[in-house]
Amino acid sequence: MKLKARLLDIQAGSKSIALLDDEAASLLGVHSSDRIEITYKNEQLIAIVNIASNFPPNQVGFYEEISKKLGVRTGETVEVHPAERPEGLSYVRAKIRGERLRENEIRIIVQDVVERHLSDTELASFVTALHIHGLSMDETEALAKAMVETGSILTLDKSPILDKHSIGGIPGDKTSLLITPIIAAAGFIIPKTSSRAVTSPAGTADRVETLCPVNLTIEEIKEVVNKTNGCMVWGGAMELAPADDIFIQIEYPLAIDPLLLPSIMSKKKAIGATHVIIDIPTGRGTKTKTIGQAEALAYDFIDLGKRLGTNVQCAITFGEQPIGYAIGPALEAREALSTILGNGPVDLKEKAINVAGILFEMVGLENGKQKAEALLKSGKAEKKLREIIEAQGGNPKIKVGEIEVGDKKAEITAIGEGRVLRIDNRKIAQVAREAGAPREKGAGVTLYTKLGDHVKKDGVIFRIHAERNTKLEAAIELAKKLQPVELSKRPEERMLMARVPTRIIRKKTFMLER
Amino acid sequence: MKLKARLLDIQAGSKSIALLDDEAASLLGVHSSDRIEITYKNEQLIAIVNIASNFPPNQVGFYEEISKKLGVRTGETVEVHPAERPEGLSYVRAKIRGERLRENEIRIIVQDVVERHLSDTELASFVTALHIHGLSMDETEALAKAMVETGSILTLDKSPILDKHSIGGIPGDKTSLLITPIIAAAGFIIPKTSSRAVTSPAGTADRVETLCPVNLTIEEIKEVVNKTNGCMVWGGAMELAPADDIFIQIEYPLAIDPLLLPSIMSKKKAIGATHVIIDIPTGRGTKTKTIGQAEALAYDFIDLGKRLGTNVQCAITFGEQPIGYAIGPALEAREALSTILGNGPVDLKEKAINVAGILFEMVGLENGKQKAEALLKSGKAEKKLREIIEAQGGNPKIKVGEIEVGDKKAEITAIGEGRVLRIDNRKIAQVAREAGAPREKGAGVTLYTKLGDHVKKDGVIFRIHAERNTKLEAAIELAKKLQPVELSKRPEERMLMARVPTRIIRKKTFMLER
Repeated sequence: MKLKARLLDIQAGSKSIALLDDEAASLLGVHSSDRIEITYKNEQLIAIVNIASNFPPNQVGFYEEISKKLGVRTGETVEVHPAERPEGLSYVRAKIRGERLRENEIRIIVQDVVERHLSDTELASFVTALHIHGLSMDETEALAKAMVETGSILTLDKSPILDKHSIGGIPGDKTSLLITPIIAAAGFIIPKTSSRAVTSPAGTADRVETLCPVNLTIEEIKEVVNKTNGCMVWGGAMELAPADDIFIQIEYPLAIDPLLLPSIMSKKKAIGATHVIIDIPTGRGTKTKTIGQAEALAYDFIDLGKRLGTNVQCAITFGEQPIGYAIGPALEAREALSTILGNGPVDLKEKAINVAGILFEMVGLENGKQKAEALLKSGKAEKKLREIIEAQGGNPKIKVGEIEVGDKKAEITAIGEGRVLRIDNRKIAQVAREAGAPREKGAGVTLYTKLGDHVKKDGVIFRIHAERNTKLEAAIELAKKLQPVELSKRPEERMLMARVPTRIIRKKTFMLER
Repeated sequence: MKLKARLLDIQAGSKSIALLDDEAASLLGVHSSDRIEITYKNEQLIAIVNIASNFPPNQVGFYEEISKKLGVRTGETVEVHPAERPEGLSYVRAKIRGERLRENEIRIIVQDVVERHLSDTELASFVTALHIHGLSMDETEALAKAMVETGSILTLDKSPILDKHSIGGIPGDKTSLLITPIIAAAGFIIPKTSSRAVTSPAGTADRVETLCPVNLTIEEIKEVVNKTNGCMVWGGAMELAPADDIFIQIEYPLAIDPLLLPSIMSKKKAIGATHVIIDIPTGRGTKTKTIGQAEALAYDFIDLGKRLGTNVQCAITFGEQPIGYAIGPALEAREALSTILGNGPVDLKEKAINVAGILFEMVGLENGKQKAEALLKSGKAEKKLREIIEAQGGNPKIKVGEIEVGDKKAEITAIGEGRVLRIDNRKIAQVAREAGAPREKGAGVTLYTKLGDHVKKDGVIFRIHAERNTKLEAAIELAKKLQPVELSKRPEERMLMARVPTRIIRKKTFMLER
């Protein structure tokens, strides 16, 4: 069927969507979310049909992604045919039915994801089915491999290549800003790629960006690593495992993360890591609530690493409160720099040297923690951090006070005397975000108290920093509502830990299988 | 935040979507699929954010659905704020976790569905979770009630109101074209609403449309029913249970149907049915493969009916081949009219009088089947059918030969002698669709043989009808490839029934619960 192209002049977020009127769709025998094959001159592609009922029946509408690929202009004639559904969709359906997928089937799904042959609806169903049915380790391995194969690779031609990753969830965790220079200062290669914050007040890339540019090309990254042994860059621009980036977008509103293992490990594999330490913050208010859960996850990481040819160990770390006192990109960069200069909080330093120490021992050194501590004390780690900042295009001489933080401040004080019983990670993060983090880099929260500390009536519990008064006001209001820090004279006063509402799981009506 | 409206002049398929540039989204602190509240003058609404990276940062793009509701024009300033996620989303997430939902929670989900506050991604995840975890009967009831409450209602102020519904899946099932006039001829009210084909070659609305208009307003339907006791109209324009229509769109590419029970029963409840017979075609090639499965489904229908205050009975019918010989809108209308005139195939007549007979017995008559048969034989059903056709605006004197069918024909013949062992419902439907059905109403298939019939070498197995030669050619090719009718001299020649490939279900890796 011949239709006239109509360019919409906007993007569909990399989705491959074509608009048809009811009438045209009906003549083609396709429905919304069926596929059509579009041919223009020598170009051909598959698009997913959306029905736009007010569209002229002799036209087909293209978002910019498609019109660019085809090189077609408004008014030109294209040939449109119904197309088969992508093969990956049948394996998505198999997963919905609870089947175990084979390596080859997973590879086809991931290819269809990257080529945008699967719609958001189908991807949402897939990740939901993965979340509910779970993945076998064979499936996890196949997913990780397929994600690596369909993305870019960083080839450094060096060995060993060390790396570190946290499964996240703890505000203020600026440990990577210490570990990377410690490892690099010892002469090991550590090409650290990080993400920006999605739901948190700061990702490592956001923190580092207050010190130097993080948006480097693969070639620039190679140069920095060749010069300094390490780097601290944003991974998003590199197209490492792009399927993972698509899955993350779909998972975001659903708040599920069934691909945690292949997601993390595919990105480590894509930068060629030979030795990886995974930090698993554990406890109340974290992703893994108990050491038992953390260990189960750790063994899965280690197993997956073995299957991918990467040496993996895990650190189960205390995660029941933020790391250090600072939360928010610039505040955290300040605290990291202070710590590398010898003045930072104990928990941050302790975590950094422990995790760096395990990495040292993984590559054959002895007394890893002591070695890491020595690199910190001697100033070698600081020197290395400044080298990396310089190589990435920042000011190597930057002082703590020169990292700009928001000048709008407010203090949240205690209404009575007490001991800090709980700091809610999620609530503290919400307050920091309300203040403007991560978008406004100087915004965030500085804690004045940590678990177990004694606070006097009217004593400062935390301080909010913002770049704008409206954000400061909003954050103060939220802080008062959420009360992220709980004080109590005696734990005995709070005997009720949780209330279980009346909900029953399962017991289903008859369900057709098609 | 103030942004300039930019109208996109196309529809988004009733979705409530606003486009923002990366920069604007980031300043607002929202991501793709977050919600924003848009205010223009006295109008306010919630939209789901899509990121269009080439959009000017001071603009917000609106599809026609939104711009119409707001009454805004390009270039005008609107106020945009981040909005809370809809309450329904938290219950969607609870269902993903496998929780049982309460009535109130389901009502909120359904309201959010109808008001388009939930994205396709979230709806896909919801129906997938429903499909995998299943629904309790309490949840099913709550869904059916909420779907009725959020839609239009047909109020006839009469009682009893009879209705009939088939769960579908059998090509050529034109039984409703007989049952409706039989019931109405006996003086009972039967306001039959039907759907158009989605994946089949003909829905009841498509068949009736070859006799008279089916796209009636609620007021017109009332008039027809008041005049004739019955009607045969398309339900799609009536906005009965619109949430169901949205769910069906989402389920279509996923090929799942977890809402079968509330979907059917909400529409029966919305037209005020007091007595409903559900036809459950059963056997190989149908939705319910065994009588055991069909009974389980039947008891669920009966239970749900009781909860909704509707008297429900079910008919488990033989579904291992098409009903009658004709498949395709016009061909089926011809066969239905022939049958009401006394000349049709046995299975169609037998099914119609049995199902109508149960309905008669449900409202207190005795010997329902005989009563139905008598109405057919006496010509009263025919007279009623013609009354309904006339009331809906068709030609009441129409003859079988006047219903136009495609004049392009081809016969598929047997390559050898044999007995008909199997007629594949799905494959026959595919051939009829390839020939042009349901869009081209004269297209379809006429069977010349049914199960158990003996066929000679070169004997006609079925005939394909089309309105266009290209479609005819395509259908012939597909018929040769699919071979929908299987012949064999002896069943003993086919001992292998199915092959079970090596797939294992379940056994999962560690899964984070958030």
